[in-house]
Amino acid sequence: MILRYDRIAMELPPPSDPDPAGAAAVQELMGGRFGEMSTFMNYTFQSFNFRGRQGARPFYDLVANIAAEEFGHVELVATAINTMLTGASPSPNGRAAVDPKKSPLSAVKGVGNPQHFLAGGQGALPQDSNGRPWNGDYVFASGDLVEDLTHNFFLETGARNNKLKVYEMVEHPAARALTGYLLVRGGVHQIAYARAIEKLTGADLMKLFPTPRIPTDKIPECKPHIERGDHLRLYRFSPSDYQELPAVFNGPNPETGEDLVVFDEPAEGVPPRDLPRQPAVFAPDFAPEDVAEIATKLRQQAGLPKEPTGLVADLQAKTKRATKKATARSK
Amino acid sequence: MILRYDRIAMELPPPSDPDPAGAAAVQELMGGRFGEMSTFMNYTFQSFNFRGRQGARPFYDLVANIAAEEFGHVELVATAINTMLTGASPSPNGRAAVDPKKSPLSAVKGVGNPQHFLAGGQGALPQDSNGRPWNGDYVFASGDLVEDLTHNFFLETGARNNKLKVYEMVEHPAARALTGYLLVRGGVHQIAYARAIEKLTGADLMKLFPTPRIPTDKIPECKPHIERGDHLRLYRFSPSDYQELPAVFNGPNPETGEDLVVFDEPAEGVPPRDLPRQPAVFAPDFAPEDVAEIATKLRQQAGLPKEPTGLVADLQAKTKRATKKATARSK
Amino acid sequence: MILRYDRIAMELPPPSDPDPAGAAAVQELMGGRFGEMSTFMNYTFQSFNFRGRQGARPFYDLVANIAAEEFGHVELVATAINTMLTGASPSPNGRAAVDPKKSPLSAVKGVGNPQHFLAGGQGALPQDSNGRPWNGDYVFASGDLVEDLTHNFFLETGARNNKLKVYEMVEHPAARALTGYLLVRGGVHQIAYARAIEKLTGADLMKLFPTPRIPTDKIPECKPHIERGDHLRLYRFSPSDYQELPAVFNGPNPETGEDLVVFDEPAEGVPPRDLPRQPAVFAPDFAPEDVAEIATKLRQQAGLPKEPTGLVADLQAKTKRATKKATARSK
Amino acid sequence: MILRYDRIAMELPPPSDPDPAGAAAVQELMGGRFGEMSTFMNYTFQSFNFRGRQGARPFYDLVANIAAEEFGHVELVATAINTMLTGASPSPNGRAAVDPKKSPLSAVKGVGNPQHFLAGGQGALPQDSNGRPWNGDYVFASGDLVEDLTHNFFLETGARNNKLKVYEMVEHPAARALTGYLLVRGGVHQIAYARAIEKLTGADLMKLFPTPRIPTDKIPECKPHIERGDHLRLYRFSPSDYQELPAVFNGPNPETGEDLVVFDEPAEGVPPRDLPRQPAVFAPDFAPEDVAEIATKLRQQAGLPKEPTGLVADLQAKTKRATKKATARSK
Amino acid sequence: MILRYDRIAMELPPPSDPDPAGAAAVQELMGGRFGEMSTFMNYTFQSFNFRGRQGARPFYDLVANIAAEEFGHVELVATAINTMLTGASPSPNGRAAVDPKKSPLSAVKGVGNPQHFLAGGQGALPQDSNGRPWNGDYVFASGDLVEDLTHNFFLETGARNNKLKVYEMVEHPAARALTGYLLVRGGVHQIAYARAIEKLTGADLMKLFPTPRIPTDKIPECKPHIERGDHLRLYRFSPSDYQELPAVFNGPNPETGEDLVVFDEPAEGVPPRDLPRQPAVFAPDFAPEDVAEIATKLRQQAGLPKEPTGLVADLQAKTKRATKKATARSK
Amino acid sequence: MILRYDRIAMELPPPSDPDPAGAAAVQELMGGRFGEMSTFMNYTFQSFNFRGRQGARPFYDLVANIAAEEFGHVELVATAINTMLTGASPSPNGRAAVDPKKSPLSAVKGVGNPQHFLAGGQGALPQDSNGRPWNGDYVFASGDLVEDLTHNFFLETGARNNKLKVYEMVEHPAARALTGYLLVRGGVHQIAYARAIEKLTGADLMKLFPTPRIPTDKIPECKPHIERGDHLRLYRFSPSDYQELPAVFNGPNPETGEDLVVFDEPAEGVPPRDLPRQPAVFAPDFAPEDVAEIATKLRQQAGLPKEPTGLVADLQAKTKRATKKATARSK
Repeated sequence: MILRYDRIAMELPPPSDPDPAGAAAVQELMGGRFGEMSTFMNYTFQSFNFRGRQGARPFYDLVANIAAEEFGHVELVATAINTMLTGASPSPNGRAAVDPKKSPLSAVKGVGNPQHFLAGGQGALPQDSNGRPWNGDYVFASGDLVEDLTHNFFLETGARNNKLKVYEMVEHPAARALTGYLLVRGGVHQIAYARAIEKLTGADLMKLFPTPRIPTDKIPECKPHIERGDHLRLYRFSPSDYQELPAVFNGPNPETGEDLVVFDEPAEGVPPRDLPRQPAVFAPDFAPEDVAEIATKLRQQAGLPKEPTGLVADLQAKTKRATKKATARSK
Repeated sequence: MILRYDRIAMELPPPSDPDPAGAAAVQELMGGRFGEMSTFMNYTFQSFNFRGRQGARPFYDLVANIAAEEFGHVELVATAINTMLTGASPSPNGRAAVDPKKSPLSAVKGVGNPQHFLAGGQGALPQDSNGRPWNGDYVFASGDLVEDLTHNFFLETGARNNKLKVYEMVEHPAARALTGYLLVRGGVHQIAYARAIEKLTGADLMKLFPTPRIPTDKIPECKPHIERGDHLRLYRFSPSDYQELPAVFNGPNPETGEDLVVFDEPAEGVPPRDLPRQPAVFAPDFAPEDVAEIATKLRQQAGLPKEPTGLVADLQAKTKRATKKATARSK
Repeated sequence: MILRYDRIAMELPPPSDPDPAGAAAVQELMGGRFGEMSTFMNYTFQSFNFRGRQGARPFYDLVANIAAEEFGHVELVATAINTMLTGASPSPNGRAAVDPKKSPLSAVKGVGNPQHFLAGGQGALPQDSNGRPWNGDYVFASGDLVEDLTHNFFLETGARNNKLKVYEMVEHPAARALTGYLLVRGGVHQIAYARAIEKLTGADLMKLFPTPRIPTDKIPECKPHIERGDHLRLYRFSPSDYQELPAVFNGPNPETGEDLVVFDEPAEGVPPRDLPRQPAVFAPDFAPEDVAEIATKLRQQAGLPKEPTGLVADLQAKTKRATKKATARSK
Repeated sequence: MILRYDRIAMELPPPSDPDPAGAAAVQELMGGRFGEMSTFMNYTFQSFNFRGRQGARPFYDLVANIAAEEFGHVELVATAINTMLTGASPSPNGRAAVDPKKSPLSAVKGVGNPQHFLAGGQGALPQDSNGRPWNGDYVFASGDLVEDLTHNFFLETGARNNKLKVYEMVEHPAARALTGYLLVRGGVHQIAYARAIEKLTGADLMKLFPTPRIPTDKIPECKPHIERGDHLRLYRFSPSDYQELPAVFNGPNPETGEDLVVFDEPAEGVPPRDLPRQPAVFAPDFAPEDVAEIATKLRQQAGLPKEPTGLVADLQAKTKRATKKATARSK
Repeated sequence: MILRYDRIAMELPPPSDPDPAGAAAVQELMGGRFGEMSTFMNYTFQSFNFRGRQGARPFYDLVANIAAEEFGHVELVATAINTMLTGASPSPNGRAAVDPKKSPLSAVKGVGNPQHFLAGGQGALPQDSNGRPWNGDYVFASGDLVEDLTHNFFLETGARNNKLKVYEMVEHPAARALTGYLLVRGGVHQIAYARAIEKLTGADLMKLFPTPRIPTDKIPECKPHIERGDHLRLYRFSPSDYQELPAVFNGPNPETGEDLVVFDEPAEGVPPRDLPRQPAVFAPDFAPEDVAEIATKLRQQAGLPKEPTGLVADLQAKTKRATKKATARSK
Repeated sequence: MILRYDRIAMELPPPSDPDPAGAAAVQELMGGRFGEMSTFMNYTFQSFNFRGRQGARPFYDLVANIAAEEFGHVELVATAINTMLTGASPSPNGRAAVDPKKSPLSAVKGVGNPQHFLAGGQGALPQDSNGRPWNGDYVFASGDLVEDLTHNFFLETGARNNKLKVYEMVEHPAARALTGYLLVRGGVHQIAYARAIEKLTGADLMKLFPTPRIPTDKIPECKPHIERGDHLRLYRFSPSDYQELPAVFNGPNPETGEDLVVFDEPAEGVPPRDLPRQPAVFAPDFAPEDVAEIATKLRQQAGLPKEPTGLVADLQAKTKRATKKATARSK
């Protein structure tokens, strides 16, 4: 079972110039064969199906714990895509309505993934960069520990490849921040699985790093995370389980030689931004303020505080200028 | 982000007579259009993509929180399938090996889902009862709050239908315990979404219950959960978020008239059983004891306790007789 | 546009011994690449997309009109499957209920297509014999008339192959009656498209008949239709359109030498049987009599006749014995 | 069975400026999860599989009859797409040929759905806006009447959402006319299913209207249909069946309060336009006049009138100017 | 480009007792994610897309050459499946015909993959063990040499897992002979890719062998091939290319320590058996002797030898008894 | 089994202006329903599954031999796509590196098939023009000889249609050269299958040529191949098999009346170009010169010649100017 908390793994830049074509490309990191849904679901199924786990506890803990972190990566990719799509349709201020007659979506006809607009509410889809849905064929859970780990090492390698290429293709600041972060964290998982294979078989995979052969620190957006030490840490994403991570995750980082370390707490993260309504796609409604009024009333009836309780990053302050610009353009 | 803890939502019976054909049917509740992967992923994507969530906080909290519970349902379905598959290939005791020459999988040729054995290690797959993979087309996240809730109500309705039919088809105790539990918890989610629509629009959906028109309490395996009050409770699956659930989830249960209540903690669950090795499918290895020896050594090197730390249900005591029987038969 | 009338193309035998494995095989004729959904949708899309149709009116009329007949074939395959599935779960008489606790679907665990029971209400699915859904890739509509006709000839040829093999595999009387009929009517369409190609290009395709090389009249279930002349007739399925069929559909039947003829009316068909409720799968409800009571009341309020108006074949008389037997067995 | 007549549900504007990118978007209304193939096939399968239909006749009649209307909607979407694609490749007048060497399709390289040109003859495909084929997984036919109706209500709701967004995205007059019409007729079906649920269970769904929350009459292209009363009428699409529609379809329209009414005849429709040849894609031939000559000869041999018999809208007069313009541009 | 020669990689046993359920399982080795179509197509696409191949010639040669061998493995899997399906429908001797009325396929209703009989002529399909088609998503060709090799090593590892499990499940002699051979040859490819990675990066993968951890020589059906030295040899499948294999493929076999060797010729193979007609599925015809008569005549007209020229294994002598038995049973 | 040789069927022009949108369209000829993967796999499976082949040897030889040629067509399509993608990302000379920070893939964001860049290394994919993977459903192998040949004739017809349209859409010289060649060779296969049907049944299909009705010699890029006589020849792609081709492949070419001839050797082909590295997508590496150094060393250790042995077309000389231009632009 899981507990969920409303923080995202890192701070993404606020909505600025929308980039629907870029958002369509970033979908590869969501629903592609090597996207975050794949890493999340692969490790999750492997952990569910892990037989004889007491006898292999350090390895079980490793797989189960990384699975938990991957949920946060799926979330982060979604957030980046949502950020990039924000403003791609007009977002009038206040109670002003969008006029459907004025073709508020005409600017995105033929641009990016049409289902971002026709199916979703300018939101992420469980699809890849060609608009094809993620599917269960991408999950490998043979039950054979060495094979599953071999798969996982390969999966992280393919994922690193895709992240680097998305980085090279999409200049939107949210995409760059996203890939910078994922490269560092995916790199840690890549090491973790290689090390696990090493521990079980003696095979030395460390010389494969980095693969693809771009040193992680050449990517400027990786730097803040490297400086924080995130390229060395495995966070423990559990209130009390997965205590045996240190039995596998140790030794030097093959790129830097520094010592790997298990961080005995989950990543702290930051409150997500409350991305603004996009009434042209009825998200969260054609007239969102009606929803807000009802919500306020319901909160009162339930004896809850007057102000919404959830923490969100201060969107208003930070994105005011960016949104205004985008809105103006898409009118 | 999530924290994960190694407990499953309810105690499932230990492995007994294996039922691969039944396990293939239960896959419908895993990877079918109305399976638990669908409920989990639908609510998860809706929560990721929720725009203007501060203005609609009680509804955001509802969707985000139920998503968290659904992860546990995916896990429970996997556990039930794994339980039903245990013993379908010979499991000799101790260090005794399985002899591949003796066709240890011949008993399951033509029975159930062949990929349970050929692709997986007698483990759950992200597929439906026809062996087709779950895919992202099953996710609906329009961004329009009323529509998403309408979808969710319909999804839970279809899910209830499927659970009832799996209950009627599969007599294996793990399948029955599973469906009994899911019917009660799914029923709560069905009510929650109906109530949310009611709050937003005034439309009265309560007269639709139960749908399908079998009263939940007619299913004996639902009773222990009803007695515990699980048909009335929405658990809060978060350390500190989703405080506004009570603003939506309140009023009477349409089947019993009792008051719905938000339970301010996650479901407690129970430690999962450590399902035994199935060496014929190399799970977790053709010679699992080698893995165990390495694990023990690694644990020592890391200064961890001598005994594995993770809590698991006491399989040995409870399933001794059942496993012996199953093993004997499959030899 | 279409008008619909509640008759099916031929009388199928009443439900008798259920045959879920046979029903799963018959699905090939529904949702397989050469199934009736394919013939229906291919000709329908070709007719929708037909450019310059005035200049090619006889050919347009041919394709558009055969499309209309194919709808009736999809319907007939569905009816046969539904007939074969009837009685596969217990059907108590009167208001007696099915007891879900008694595993009313256990007899079909591992038999046939599980989604006939878990997804549907013992009803036909848009799937093939492997449980895979029909999909739009099976439609060929190039817009090039000669090519589309070449495709259609090939499609009918593949369809004839599949029908013959289903005939050889499934002994259930409904399957045999179905395939006997479809072989005759499909044979007419096969001829029609071959003749159309002949008219347009001069290529002589008549020597290809019969293909596969089993003379149609070797199949006893084809005989009544041959005796009625259905192997020579193209019915006009329209109130007033498709007048130019005779310009293409003429000359001798390549198997018998008899003259082909355009029949200036639709096939008459027969009223369908009202297949009995299957409460174990909640079709049409767990307690169907409640629905019936409401329907009666609504009919009265609307000033309609006391008895339901739709014509259905007299099921009660004809299937009494068969159903009783099947019900007894499935208890 | 069906009869087919060559009229389309409403008059669409003649071909004008081609809009291949728009046509690719409109495909969502054809082959998307909520497209017209889905509504057509869902209600069709539900009606085929309807058990105990005599006892539930008004509901059977409703589903079966709406299915028949949906065929006309699939046809209308196809016609709109075909209209939008007309002129996207050069269409020289008279017997003049297109020169393949001059890259007559280069203008559409990278624009819209490539298979509109490479696979089809500038014609509609059974695909969605991402070029993925419609598939049978989109059909829900559980056999449980209340569930099927709940599904249908949700399906129409999702369809309305998609239609509104396509309306906002595509300015081409054919797309706008199409969506205006479909919104009105889909709205009627949405009401019909909601009312049916109400009749069966007492649940009041009327307050959900309109959903999405854009009043239908805000869309100018809906107006002519509302003025004609099409937002209140259920047409009976059958020579003699489906007499019990009034038992369910009655009471007020939830948006306007006016009385719903069963119209005891099918919609009249209008003759379709004969869309002009597009020789660059060989539709209906590289040299269509050859086909026309053969057709004329065959018609004579069959003793048919000299002029083609089928009624088509007078394309020549109405579209002369538009086509000329488009042709000029695409040369 | 390729040259093709009509020999198969090893002698498979003649048809004996048919095993349609086993044949359905063996399909996993054909069209599964790790089946031979995947190995063939992966290496083929990687070789087609190999950039800068002169600079990396030994690696290009390795991938291109193994691709060529894999074609023979696809062929061998097909042959094994065809062998196992032979006799599953009645095969009367001489010109005697099969009587379709006697349900010659009823014995295989509900057994194995229905499309082996309904779609194919008791022949192999490009599908996996669940009847799902192989698809291009299974191909990984990133263009990054180290990554492609990492993938290939993992692919061969997954393939070895699947072969071992099919070996354990299916006792039919053709399946056992097939898997015995593929395990040895796949093992060589697994080593080859591991060695290539080693050469490029220095990472030592040899300790991963064998994986899964069953020594190859424990499988009796592997022995003849090991005795012949096939576990050490890389055959050069080209008239004159791929000369640089020895630059990569050298050093010790990690399981046995013996020296790897490049064999400068293709595997010799054996003539395939001419599998007998199966007239119930019209393979090669409902009346195959008609085809034979035409072939004889055509051969004469072309001045070819009186007897067919192609070499085939002497089926008649070897399989007389086996076929007789199978035929008798399936009558 | 096959032997492979490193020549491609014809000389394609060197890389020049990259055309990623065109390359995406050309994918239809690779992984589309009528693409070269389909022709290759259809004939290959038909030959594998051919029963009673001795009695039908000329036909077996025909299908098996054409299959072998089709491999070369798949290869040629891949080469054309790779050529068209070359230069779409910057390719600095010598050891100069690409700087990932400078968004070297931004120019192709939203252009063509994103997976050409994100998944592949600017290389061909087993997908169609909509980015959907080729799948095994495209293979028809009924085992019935006449039907398989009918299918093959239709398949070649559909393939000719697609090739013509790709020719009309894509002006890139590699695409034009490719389609010119494939039209001629596909035309020969189309004739071969039509002739085979004629021989077996007497049906005269020759009047269907050409279909689509564009004479092949109207395409300038077909001319050199027609002049060489390639429109009349069937090459024998085998060291010693397929001797009976002349029994079927004879008589006049239906378009020109010239005599068809079996050419008793494979097509000679030309050495392929060694397409240059594309370091922005890590093909063959982020720093390809490192790979080259290792390769040189390995070659020496193995006693191989100093220079790479494989023959490749002299890219440097021929494409110097073109590449320089493309590189400059994409910087």
